[in-house]
Amino acid sequence: MYEPGDVRVIDAPDPRIEEPTDALLRLVRTCVCGSDLHPYHSMKPRAQGVSMGHEYLGIVEEVGADVATVKPGDLVIVPFVFSCGVCDFCREGLQTSCRVAGLRSRLGSEGAQAELLRAPLADGTLFAVDAGEEHYAGLLTLSDVYGTGFHAALTGGAGAGTTVAVIGDGAVGLLAVLSARQLGADRIILMGRHEARTDLGREFGATDVVAARGEEGIEAVRELTDGDGCHVVLEAVGHLPAYEQALGVVRDGGRIARVGVPQYTDGPIGRVQFNRNVTITGGVAPVRAYIDRLLPGILAGTVDPGRVFDVELPLERAAEGYALMDRREALKVMLRP
Amino acid sequence: MYEPGDVRVIDAPDPRIEEPTDALLRLVRTCVCGSDLHPYHSMKPRAQGVSMGHEYLGIVEEVGADVATVKPGDLVIVPFVFSCGVCDFCREGLQTSCRVAGLRSRLGSEGAQAELLRAPLADGTLFAVDAGEEHYAGLLTLSDVYGTGFHAALTGGAGAGTTVAVIGDGAVGLLAVLSARQLGADRIILMGRHEARTDLGREFGATDVVAARGEEGIEAVRELTDGDGCHVVLEAVGHLPAYEQALGVVRDGGRIARVGVPQYTDGPIGRVQFNRNVTITGGVAPVRAYIDRLLPGILAGTVDPGRVFDVELPLERAAEGYALMDRREALKVMLRP
Repeated sequence: MYEPGDVRVIDAPDPRIEEPTDALLRLVRTCVCGSDLHPYHSMKPRAQGVSMGHEYLGIVEEVGADVATVKPGDLVIVPFVFSCGVCDFCREGLQTSCRVAGLRSRLGSEGAQAELLRAPLADGTLFAVDAGEEHYAGLLTLSDVYGTGFHAALTGGAGAGTTVAVIGDGAVGLLAVLSARQLGADRIILMGRHEARTDLGREFGATDVVAARGEEGIEAVRELTDGDGCHVVLEAVGHLPAYEQALGVVRDGGRIARVGVPQYTDGPIGRVQFNRNVTITGGVAPVRAYIDRLLPGILAGTVDPGRVFDVELPLERAAEGYALMDRREALKVMLRP
Repeated sequence: MYEPGDVRVIDAPDPRIEEPTDALLRLVRTCVCGSDLHPYHSMKPRAQGVSMGHEYLGIVEEVGADVATVKPGDLVIVPFVFSCGVCDFCREGLQTSCRVAGLRSRLGSEGAQAELLRAPLADGTLFAVDAGEEHYAGLLTLSDVYGTGFHAALTGGAGAGTTVAVIGDGAVGLLAVLSARQLGADRIILMGRHEARTDLGREFGATDVVAARGEEGIEAVRELTDGDGCHVVLEAVGHLPAYEQALGVVRDGGRIARVGVPQYTDGPIGRVQFNRNVTITGGVAPVRAYIDRLLPGILAGTVDPGRVFDVELPLERAAEGYALMDRREALKVMLRP
């Protein structure tokens, strides 16, 4: 990506093993993320461009001398944040705060919208899986959006006895619905206004859909909940009005889990929230921690998170994929390298 | 209180039973709260004055026809928020959001810095206890400050394996230390700069004291924790710099529980907190929910939260009590009606 709206697929030098902990992967599926649209709208132009993409499914081509857990030929899921797997944060399941990599460092890796990838810290990051091509779409969601939706539902405390509101009908919002359903939520109110998406949300487990936003949307959710609001709110947008909407629909004593990347630095966090004992939780998702738990459902076919991909394009048409998502004509575009 | 700095003890008409759910109490101990100092500094002058105080220990004089759980002669603890005891919020232990009273309504009751009190919703609010005068100071803390400190420690997740920072060395901060100790925290760092108070904090269980504030204080806590910060931060002040300090000393993935009443409406809640998976929790404390749990330790003498009262005055010298607390010459002033 060179500037807003300008995505080009170019020939670049092949990456190579640089560290003994690296693996070299041939990507078999990748995709465009809702968060890729932020730079697509507002990045500062860069003559060299920026390598894009952070959702990867690949086959190991080669491994460095110290790599022990994957071998050439393995199909691997690559979480969007690399992690060492052995530091205390990784062992606690907060790989996004890994002391070696995490959000601290991309370790020089290029983006996922490519044919080849040098994956650093292969043992701590990659997750090998034995599965056929029919599962590729589902597996790819474990790289980011499904794990992110699950992080929201889990940290938000969705479960039996709870009413959950999900704000946002993008891939993460829809998979937050799916996750809340898996965790046993009684009722799931999806707030979104794209009917094809909210229809999928219903199939994923939403019991109600509210298309209205802002004060009107808050009012609608309160009407659905006897005026009380929801025990759990999963905020999968990231803009300030979505956070304000979350505050408006949460029940006293309830929990807001944010997984939309905040596009603001300050927001309402004062006495109104304090008097109502509202908890703000969530954050960037350590998706590596959830693969173990979410993979069996995909392989067994009991859940089908891969349905968030409604358009598939060859990698060389990536620019078209961005444009389709930007115009809301595609929910999520899968790219085949 | 008539205007900032102007506290008067006046003769007022005796309250009477007005509703069949009321009880009439003769207060035996009451006190001045740190939060009473906010209006003491900045209230708008009022010709009629405002009746102050919300921490009560009293003896039942008379009950309304519908009151079943307390009777004349009973010693009762009165939580600072009245509650019906039967609505869903009360049953969930969030009496501050009670559908009948809670923070919604003081139900016409006057303040606690008085001889007599009409206590509405007696069955849902009052907690009868059989104890002698030697326990009065401890019991009075269950009306607010001990329950509030405990709310912080509990919602913040203080417990075995955690390092806890407590911001503020007022009565609530010190009792948050005591509560974190009771819940099994490994290490408790008290941030406060009044030595007599932090000394009491050490007796309550603080393992470290940091007198510095702001960036310097944050640096000191990070040094004590190998650069990481604390799993749990209990914010018992309420001013924005204290919240910012909490953000500075919390570990990635950690929890900030606020029990100081926020004196701000907006604050930092953006991508920095999001990327670090910081949870903001706590809120106004439903102290009624904790009396059951905290009372036995007081009666058995295993904890002595009443030590936060370092000055005792007759009620008619209430103005002096405010001035002492305002000048930080008293930690917390007990008043004897």
